[in-house]
Amino acid sequence: MSDAYTHLLSHFKQTALLGSCESVLGWDERTYMPRGGAAHRADQIALLAGLVHDRVTEPSVDGWLQAIEADEPDAGSVEAVNVREWRRAYDRATRMPKTLVEEIARVTTVGQQVWMEARANDDFDAFEEILADVVRLKREEARLLAEGTSLYDALLEDYEPGETTENLQRVFGPLKEALVPLVARVGEASVKPDLSILHREYPEDAQSAFGTEVAAAIGFDFERGRLDVTTHPFCSGLGPGDTRITTRYDRHELNQAFFGILHEAGHGVYDQGLSPEHWGTPMGSAVSLGIHESQSRLWENFVGRSPAFWRQFYPKLKAAFPGVLDDVDESNFVLAVNDVRPSFIRVEADEATYNLHIMLRFELEQALIEDELQAADVPSAWNELFESYFGMRPESDASGCLQDIHWSGGGIGYFPTYTLGNLYAAALFDQAGKDLGDLDAQFEAGEFGPLLQWLTTKVYNQGMRYYSNDLSMVITGTPLSHEPLIGHLTRKYETLYGI
Amino acid sequence: MSDAYTHLLSHFKQTALLGSCESVLGWDERTYMPRGGAAHRADQIALLAGLVHDRVTEPSVDGWLQAIEADEPDAGSVEAVNVREWRRAYDRATRMPKTLVEEIARVTTVGQQVWMEARANDDFDAFEEILADVVRLKREEARLLAEGTSLYDALLEDYEPGETTENLQRVFGPLKEALVPLVARVGEASVKPDLSILHREYPEDAQSAFGTEVAAAIGFDFERGRLDVTTHPFCSGLGPGDTRITTRYDRHELNQAFFGILHEAGHGVYDQGLSPEHWGTPMGSAVSLGIHESQSRLWENFVGRSPAFWRQFYPKLKAAFPGVLDDVDESNFVLAVNDVRPSFIRVEADEATYNLHIMLRFELEQALIEDELQAADVPSAWNELFESYFGMRPESDASGCLQDIHWSGGGIGYFPTYTLGNLYAAALFDQAGKDLGDLDAQFEAGEFGPLLQWLTTKVYNQGMRYYSNDLSMVITGTPLSHEPLIGHLTRKYETLYGI
Repeated sequence: MSDAYTHLLSHFKQTALLGSCESVLGWDERTYMPRGGAAHRADQIALLAGLVHDRVTEPSVDGWLQAIEADEPDAGSVEAVNVREWRRAYDRATRMPKTLVEEIARVTTVGQQVWMEARANDDFDAFEEILADVVRLKREEARLLAEGTSLYDALLEDYEPGETTENLQRVFGPLKEALVPLVARVGEASVKPDLSILHREYPEDAQSAFGTEVAAAIGFDFERGRLDVTTHPFCSGLGPGDTRITTRYDRHELNQAFFGILHEAGHGVYDQGLSPEHWGTPMGSAVSLGIHESQSRLWENFVGRSPAFWRQFYPKLKAAFPGVLDDVDESNFVLAVNDVRPSFIRVEADEATYNLHIMLRFELEQALIEDELQAADVPSAWNELFESYFGMRPESDASGCLQDIHWSGGGIGYFPTYTLGNLYAAALFDQAGKDLGDLDAQFEAGEFGPLLQWLTTKVYNQGMRYYSNDLSMVITGTPLSHEPLIGHLTRKYETLYGI
Repeated sequence: MSDAYTHLLSHFKQTALLGSCESVLGWDERTYMPRGGAAHRADQIALLAGLVHDRVTEPSVDGWLQAIEADEPDAGSVEAVNVREWRRAYDRATRMPKTLVEEIARVTTVGQQVWMEARANDDFDAFEEILADVVRLKREEARLLAEGTSLYDALLEDYEPGETTENLQRVFGPLKEALVPLVARVGEASVKPDLSILHREYPEDAQSAFGTEVAAAIGFDFERGRLDVTTHPFCSGLGPGDTRITTRYDRHELNQAFFGILHEAGHGVYDQGLSPEHWGTPMGSAVSLGIHESQSRLWENFVGRSPAFWRQFYPKLKAAFPGVLDDVDESNFVLAVNDVRPSFIRVEADEATYNLHIMLRFELEQALIEDELQAADVPSAWNELFESYFGMRPESDASGCLQDIHWSGGGIGYFPTYTLGNLYAAALFDQAGKDLGDLDAQFEAGEFGPLLQWLTTKVYNQGMRYYSNDLSMVITGTPLSHEPLIGHLTRKYETLYGI
């Protein structure tokens, strides 16, 4: 190891350590912080974000990087991966003045608090001003970061390195064209799930206990993590050995918390599966939000909504809620958790229509950042576009444009990663089946270890070695496409719905 | 305001902001952090402690201080108070190498985790090594900080500026001489409280709800604070608008959580009553742990164990636990919460014998830091000394030398502040009675606002204007003495026990 590399390693590990303090504060802000602490918390987070920025942009970083780059480290080596990413981080960060970094941290911290209130009160007016501020700041950021690309692509790069609007449109187009008729076919099927069974009396304590049991069964380690309650569920890695997930409970909504927990636990096993030896460096970091989301989707949908999974867990579910499901047989339950129909709330949407929710947000946030849509016009734009996609209008902003926390927190360019997650999940799950044999038989037996081990080796331990498109290509041998996802959905719905 | 002062103000406010991030991490560590996160958390806290240390010891601080000191700011002004304390902080911090600061932060963070396990398993051997490490590091710290004083006084100065072992012994001696016969008289009284009534069935949820109601009634603001559950209860100020307290519940121990909540809420109202305009500066900080403790004691004991308080709350307590206390009249309940007798656990001790627990620890920790007692010998030294004070030996280390978190966290020199708290509480409460008229009548009516307002003006808003001894002298006109506390206890026990 060269001296320059040793310096960089120590420098960026300390920087990651400082950044992880910010993660603790962010987690606390969304879980337990009292309302009165919001303003001070914004100051704290802004301070830490500024200190991290100072460290990333220290001039000595450039010197160390140049010393190594001159030597051209072996492509594909740990050193080459880390240096490539440190260079990218340095170049992007030096384009951003610290004042802007701090202002974005502060405004988006307050923004999330304002959003929570506004959503609870269905009051878009209370949110409009800070949304406009966030968009203005993110546009300023995008202008500074864009190098011949669109403003939107400059922000997308933060969540999905190497990804472009053009490539997304290449795949999203055929995806939409295949999804719409598939959803229509399911809608016309004579088989209709009885959704009322999911809205019976499911005490919250029992939901929490059952969800915890299942999350542990698929491999989420509660010695190195925990589960809490928040309005908007999330997963946050606070450091090695500390990965936290959240959910929300409603005693008349079994799906919401159960699949929410499975979803976040999917993120969680990715985080827990990252290489501890490389913690704090790109080789020990998740490659992108799309790949992160592929894990939450894979465990939530490809595993958790499969008939084989419920062969193992349906008897346990019935035991967890004594008497509640005595009259419901397993196949009817599986059908109910695979209901497909247009709905207002993204996080409650089914596997198929979910992607339409994403495409809508993808369109709107491009318009916002390109200054073609103003914050004040978001509700009407949302409602119109929603009607064109789903044939119905939201009854309120709370179930429309106020439903997601992302924009309030500065997450513009983030939404497409959800559909990328579905696409990557499908591609990876296909390949895992080829490599591991009969996954259904394993799920029926409650064995998730082989799949988790396969993902740990192929994906989690790879860190940022390959960007998403390349990682998927290396594992599956084919480029990003809508086909695996459409294939999965078509096979499943044809069987369940007899279409 | 001079330029130098403006620089210092901004510099130390930012430093306090950074320090408050450490407080959030510390709170999380003791409440919700999964076990697997302990090692990383220790690194995080060490990093922040090191960064704070860097800022406090920046050479420019000395330059700014000298510029102001040359002008001699008006004694008693906000500027003079802040400058005096910044100078003290700078001088103490520059004597400590950063590596030692970081090592202490890391070892004491791990130490608290090890202590929790050791206490739960009643396993002193598991704790011995890290205790020895902590003592060694604190001794090193004391050597660097002592300026002609004893090692113990050098550490005491951190918690109780201006206080000395000599002054403590001056007051603790007569206190012990007055307490021992008073406790004996109560023990010989024919009136005997029926303690069994406190060990009936008190569901934890109802304890939490009732404790929360009472904490709010005395003035703890839950919009700017919260209550959680931990093994060792504490209060932590995480910043303006964010003050958190904890307690622990046992459904067969009413006293533990109830008076625990009241105690921590007493700390909490002090923290919430500090001047927000001076936050992050000495004028907006608590003056000492002794004065902090005087507030927890005042609200727990002088208010919460008074017959007048229960005139207001006993009917509410009965309503909170329907049927449980139907056969117990108010006077018998008040007698039970004023039981006096030797016991093993400090935090459960009565108002009188509590101080003997403190004197025991005060002796032992002086011996530890002066290298006259080794970590390995702590259990036997504890048990022998305990027998000489209380006439009985602890049955286990968990109920002996393992019961307190303080030493594991580096808190050596901390314990005497508890008895100082009792002494100051008595002095302040006497004076409040003189200034505010019939406090009992106010408590009976559920009115705690006048007392809170008096304390806010006289104590909380004063920040670090005066050190403890002087603050008490300014408010009450008399120096620290055992007399107000002994007077309070004697009057109360003579009435309740008919002695």
